[in-house]
Amino acid sequence: MLSIEKAQEVIVSELEKLEIPQEPRNLYEPVRYILSNGGKRFRPALVLLGCDLFGGDYLKAVYPALGIEVFHNFTLLHDDLMDNSTVRRNRPTVHIKWDPNTAILSGDVMSILASSLINKVDAGILGPVSSLFNKTAIEVCEGQMLDMEYALCENVSISEYINMIRLKTSVLIAASLGVGALIAGAAEKESESLYNFGLHLGIAFQLQDDLLDSFGDQNVFGKKIGNDIITNKRTFLLIRAFEKASGHELMELQKYFSGEEFDAREKIDSVLAVFNKLDIRKETETKINEHHQNALKYLEAINVPVERKEVLMRFSAELMKREK
Amino acid sequence: MLSIEKAQEVIVSELEKLEIPQEPRNLYEPVRYILSNGGKRFRPALVLLGCDLFGGDYLKAVYPALGIEVFHNFTLLHDDLMDNSTVRRNRPTVHIKWDPNTAILSGDVMSILASSLINKVDAGILGPVSSLFNKTAIEVCEGQMLDMEYALCENVSISEYINMIRLKTSVLIAASLGVGALIAGAAEKESESLYNFGLHLGIAFQLQDDLLDSFGDQNVFGKKIGNDIITNKRTFLLIRAFEKASGHELMELQKYFSGEEFDAREKIDSVLAVFNKLDIRKETETKINEHHQNALKYLEAINVPVERKEVLMRFSAELMKREK
Repeated sequence: MLSIEKAQEVIVSELEKLEIPQEPRNLYEPVRYILSNGGKRFRPALVLLGCDLFGGDYLKAVYPALGIEVFHNFTLLHDDLMDNSTVRRNRPTVHIKWDPNTAILSGDVMSILASSLINKVDAGILGPVSSLFNKTAIEVCEGQMLDMEYALCENVSISEYINMIRLKTSVLIAASLGVGALIAGAAEKESESLYNFGLHLGIAFQLQDDLLDSFGDQNVFGKKIGNDIITNKRTFLLIRAFEKASGHELMELQKYFSGEEFDAREKIDSVLAVFNKLDIRKETETKINEHHQNALKYLEAINVPVERKEVLMRFSAELMKREK
Repeated sequence: MLSIEKAQEVIVSELEKLEIPQEPRNLYEPVRYILSNGGKRFRPALVLLGCDLFGGDYLKAVYPALGIEVFHNFTLLHDDLMDNSTVRRNRPTVHIKWDPNTAILSGDVMSILASSLINKVDAGILGPVSSLFNKTAIEVCEGQMLDMEYALCENVSISEYINMIRLKTSVLIAASLGVGALIAGAAEKESESLYNFGLHLGIAFQLQDDLLDSFGDQNVFGKKIGNDIITNKRTFLLIRAFEKASGHELMELQKYFSGEEFDAREKIDSVLAVFNKLDIRKETETKINEHHQNALKYLEAINVPVERKEVLMRFSAELMKREK
């Protein structure tokens, strides 16, 4: 069995060996730059683990796994440009270090490089693999559009929000596992169950991101706590708070999210006080757990010996316990 | 045999029927908008004609042909944003009608939609078709980067320039024919010859674009004559003029391309006078003819009855005679 650590090790080492062309330098230098940002690489690791679950040869999944990672980094590159984020993992973003046009074009070429890598599979499964990837890539774009729209919209419901994070975040995690299953030659029904495991895991993962941003331990989290609050981001926490609040709490929320400028510390503390009053932390944890349990049910349904599933069970448990 | 007119008719009608999702509206509305710009559609027509040349069923080439057209329009959408062009075919460009972020994301999804359409071929040829498309798409990005770099660079040689237009323009024309050949099941050598026919035709096509911008008939051309001169664009004509000029002509060129602002009419007239003095028009026509003849040699080498080649011969002749 392939361990999580070994899978990540393989990905890190193969990603370093990945040949990105040298010229035109201004096109490919940003690609190398963003790919060397030391991310967690858990999506490509899931491709290998998804393949290994069904007894497939995970070495055959390495290029498609790198394709998933290249695609993920393409979305980060363009999202940073669209969100005008200046820093990622303590380094300037591509459109800051170079310029917006370079960010557009280097992102464009990454999206195609990703597709080329995904397609490096046996001819017999190329159709289903590339279909799953293209469908997923389209959904990720849809999710990013909804995310941008919701930032300007006051009335986003929880179900709209969950649908948005499903598209923006979860489908790529699900597809990582699904591609791995296809490479192992798993039956359609089994691949689908693994895909759905990833889908719920991805939703839980994003909800935890929301939670950590408000209730994480700043020293462990590595980012400033309360950034979502400062930037008026409509997360699960804020949407639920608006739904539940009345009287003083509602007035507080309306005041702090009216668009006016406030002292950051004051705003974070006041909004966290409202969250605490309304028991939002607990509610978010319950929701995370719900999706985690749903994920595990799909994993249970897969027809392979339970020992083979232990790695993914551990993986999901660690993702749920994470503090950063 | 499929005629050029019939091929274009099929493409126009199938493009209208192409199902682009409705939601998210802000993502897909710009896709529909740019695809309805009434372009010449000659790239997708070439996919059908390339397939028909080898006796293939051109109906099997329709989706990949639409994929090529969607990809081409994706590059227009992102190029317009990067070049900050405000008008295309008498309509505001996407980043003007919507905003830059919408242009980025709608372009991103078009690139993937293109790939999905290209992949709608029989499983047996999916590998070669998607490889050719991805290779081509990467080259088009490289060409656009070189084009942006050369705009800021004073010393671009003719061979660098030809290489840039090969990447930015020709490879997609060549790949259109190549994909058609693959769908027809043509032998590798024959597909390559047809690809190379398209490659030289594409270079001739772009050089003619350069020529028309300086020496076209304004009434027929549809765009303002001299736009390349006004925007200091290093075209084949300008690069050769700088190479050949000395004395008064060189001083004129240096003056008008120093970055200073000039009256548009004065600048165009003076630069055209230098072009005329140095016989640049004739030289460009010779170069166009050279690539056209090269293209025809590759077409001749293809092992199908000469009657089957007549459509593409006529197509290339019309492209060379075009005045807009």
